[in-house]
Amino acid sequence: MKMKAQPYDIEVGRYEIIVNATDADELGIHAGDRVQVKNRDTITAVVETTDAIIPPGRVGIYREAWEALKTVPDEVVEVIPAERPRSIQYIRKKMDKQKLTSEEMHDIIADIVKGNLTEIELTSFVTASYIYGMDADEIEWMTRAMVKTGDQISFDTHPVMDHHSIGGVPGNKISLCVVPIVAAAGLLIPKTSSRAITGAGGSADLMEILAPVSFSAEEVKKITTKVGGCLVWGGATNIAPADDKIIGVEYPLSIDPRSQLISSVMAKKYAVGADTMVLDIPMGNQSKIATIQEARKLARDFIELGDRLKMRVECAITYGGSPIGRTIGGGLEVREALTMLEKFEGPTSLIEKTLAISGMMLEMGGVAAKNEGQKMAAEIVKSGKALRKFKEIIEVQGGDPKITSEQVPVGDKVATVLSPQDGYVLEIFNKRLVAVCRTAGAPHDKGAGILIHKKKGEYVKKGDGLFTIYADKEWKLDAAIKESLRDPIMFVEGMVLEKVQVV
Amino acid sequence: MKMKAQPYDIEVGRYEIIVNATDADELGIHAGDRVQVKNRDTITAVVETTDAIIPPGRVGIYREAWEALKTVPDEVVEVIPAERPRSIQYIRKKMDKQKLTSEEMHDIIADIVKGNLTEIELTSFVTASYIYGMDADEIEWMTRAMVKTGDQISFDTHPVMDHHSIGGVPGNKISLCVVPIVAAAGLLIPKTSSRAITGAGGSADLMEILAPVSFSAEEVKKITTKVGGCLVWGGATNIAPADDKIIGVEYPLSIDPRSQLISSVMAKKYAVGADTMVLDIPMGNQSKIATIQEARKLARDFIELGDRLKMRVECAITYGGSPIGRTIGGGLEVREALTMLEKFEGPTSLIEKTLAISGMMLEMGGVAAKNEGQKMAAEIVKSGKALRKFKEIIEVQGGDPKITSEQVPVGDKVATVLSPQDGYVLEIFNKRLVAVCRTAGAPHDKGAGILIHKKKGEYVKKGDGLFTIYADKEWKLDAAIKESLRDPIMFVEGMVLEKVQVV
Repeated sequence: MKMKAQPYDIEVGRYEIIVNATDADELGIHAGDRVQVKNRDTITAVVETTDAIIPPGRVGIYREAWEALKTVPDEVVEVIPAERPRSIQYIRKKMDKQKLTSEEMHDIIADIVKGNLTEIELTSFVTASYIYGMDADEIEWMTRAMVKTGDQISFDTHPVMDHHSIGGVPGNKISLCVVPIVAAAGLLIPKTSSRAITGAGGSADLMEILAPVSFSAEEVKKITTKVGGCLVWGGATNIAPADDKIIGVEYPLSIDPRSQLISSVMAKKYAVGADTMVLDIPMGNQSKIATIQEARKLARDFIELGDRLKMRVECAITYGGSPIGRTIGGGLEVREALTMLEKFEGPTSLIEKTLAISGMMLEMGGVAAKNEGQKMAAEIVKSGKALRKFKEIIEVQGGDPKITSEQVPVGDKVATVLSPQDGYVLEIFNKRLVAVCRTAGAPHDKGAGILIHKKKGEYVKKGDGLFTIYADKEWKLDAAIKESLRDPIMFVEGMVLEKVQVV
Repeated sequence: MKMKAQPYDIEVGRYEIIVNATDADELGIHAGDRVQVKNRDTITAVVETTDAIIPPGRVGIYREAWEALKTVPDEVVEVIPAERPRSIQYIRKKMDKQKLTSEEMHDIIADIVKGNLTEIELTSFVTASYIYGMDADEIEWMTRAMVKTGDQISFDTHPVMDHHSIGGVPGNKISLCVVPIVAAAGLLIPKTSSRAITGAGGSADLMEILAPVSFSAEEVKKITTKVGGCLVWGGATNIAPADDKIIGVEYPLSIDPRSQLISSVMAKKYAVGADTMVLDIPMGNQSKIATIQEARKLARDFIELGDRLKMRVECAITYGGSPIGRTIGGGLEVREALTMLEKFEGPTSLIEKTLAISGMMLEMGGVAAKNEGQKMAAEIVKSGKALRKFKEIIEVQGGDPKITSEQVPVGDKVATVLSPQDGYVLEIFNKRLVAVCRTAGAPHDKGAGILIHKKKGEYVKKGDGLFTIYADKEWKLDAAIKESLRDPIMFVEGMVLEKVQVV
């Protein structure tokens, strides 16, 4: 059918058009069907229908399709029904509990990256993968497909180190210490990180306070080759770009399918050329992994996938029941991490975890003898080498290498929550801490966060500060205080959580 | 956050807004999250984010939300993060294979109807329901929820009859004959039908050739009370409106979950006040139900749900391997059905099926003795009572009661496909027939369709017509001829389906 093109300037992440329902009837198509749109070029697009916005005889063309067609308003284009991508059959196959082949998995992932699938089709793939899981073959194929459909880096020298935490524990700023330590020991570590989705700040959000973090894959290689390491945002690199689109569906459903978690992490590491990595699995009843059995199973799955990809993977099961260090949120976390590199001072949970993970990497990377890694890591910090290396990294990424921990800005709107009584801190509710940080403005407001004065097992007196909320904006501080009072954040021995009284 | 309202005049089926990614960051929200939007009124809407279309400080408000807020361009509204609807937790429960309660099912269906769920959330509910199925309780609860969330009819006299075919067999125009026969016998039959989604024409598409079919629930009651029966389009009635939204997800995935099929049919029947119904289950390797075991299982499920809803349900398992009658598509089917009522003439498959289904209903409705229904149905047709009743129905729905079968328009662009050789017709490929009808213009072009000259088991000579394609438009006829040659539609004994030669 010949139709007049009309720009419909909305970004939808795929080639999409919108036609009047009468024309859709005439063409024998429905919303969600595919059509070919032809002028000098031909694209395949998904159809939306409308009763009102687009009159019969015209076709509304969304931004991505408009740019691809290089058409002009009112140009006559031809719209004809087209077949659905084959990958939809493979999604059906997964919905019917059948194992996918390597090629089928690749087709699905490639169509996700190209924007060939609608939100409905992508969601049903994610939901079916969540319900059935994937076997080791499928996970490998998905990982390889995610790698192939994005940019890749390879280094001329080896080993190439990497580390990753599966997350779920607040205040986990250790990458800011681990990367400089490992690079200072002469190993390559091209570290890409994510931004917070539901947390108070990812490593990329933290590093951004010190230097730019958006680089292409090629730039990541250049930076790493030059100074040994980097701390960049994975989202800017076009490395394993399928991941972001899949997360876009998982996030609103609050799901994190195991198969997807494993392949997403490993694809990103594989694609930056890493061959040796340490995976941190925080375990505890408030983190993603509740039991040691679950943690071990996950560790085995990572190691198996590593084998298949010829990557050496070791896992550290760590304590995830309590925040790492005493700070959560942007500037506060960066201060704590910098202080640790400057003076080798800070909370035990931060220092121990940093040295343990760094130590494993130094041993795996062949620069420390067995059981000597942790000691070597401590020396690298104590000698100031780690700090110098971090500043080199900050400089080459375009930040100010002269910055000190005191200079890192934190919010000037503060409020301290006091203990209502004497007693030991028996529990800290991580998710509540994060919720208050987010209400205070994290991760967007870099000064927003929480400084914890008393951690689990510490004794507190009535009227002592339990934690201080920092914010950049007065109204966000007020909201955060309100949020902090809504449900308890810490549990002090003998405290009544809520009174339910019959009057 | 205070933002300036900007209309974003697109219909999306739910309350939705779009904000700049910077503002989303500032608010700590992501695409798919909910916000409250406040001016004098408050609505809860789903958030989309953009880097470009909406500048910071402004909020684009889609049509439905715009109308609900009654705002004006540039008015300052407040946007604050809101909680997700509880029904999303229940969807997660279903994804985790847990049984839903009656209240949870109702919340999900109510949120679907109100447009409170995003496409991602709705799709994951449909996918999980497809994968796990539902037990008899859940199906009952879903049915009741679908009824309650739409309009309902109740009649003062009983029984109220209904019939339904689960579909999958082309040319199934029998409702046009069954409804008049049952109504002529003095029974009430408020028949709502669907339009074709993937077929060549639903009963509503056919009836529309003779009279308007869009009526409210109240009008359906009025018409039925007046003349005993009607043939209207269910989609216009606001009866069980959840169904259309769910089908909107099932269609692009090409799935038809059993639980959804059963509750959708029964909700529509229950909501029009029917208490006695006959369900037609076409069975055969080309229809939806391949084996007699499957058909019986489905029949039992329908009957059990009927028991729970206090509806009397009987099922007819019919032959679905071949089209009903010799016509497929709008005007051709209406002609065939009218001829049957006018002269009691027509293909055996049409006459027998009409009388069998009508007969069951006459017996269940208590107007025919056991085993006498079919005979009585035949007499109602022979005596002309059925034809007179049909014309009453056509008239009260606003059509022309004087119409005769010859006057029903059919396409004037025709082409007959001839047999390439002598032999018996061994197979007719239903899906191919339907594909050719749709390419010829059905269901949109009312004159488009196919007249079959030779059916299964009939002898054909080389050069005899196998079938004739009708179309309203020359270019669609051409496309249909091309489509009919692409893959075989009929298989004549000894015919080579395709030659694969090594040259």
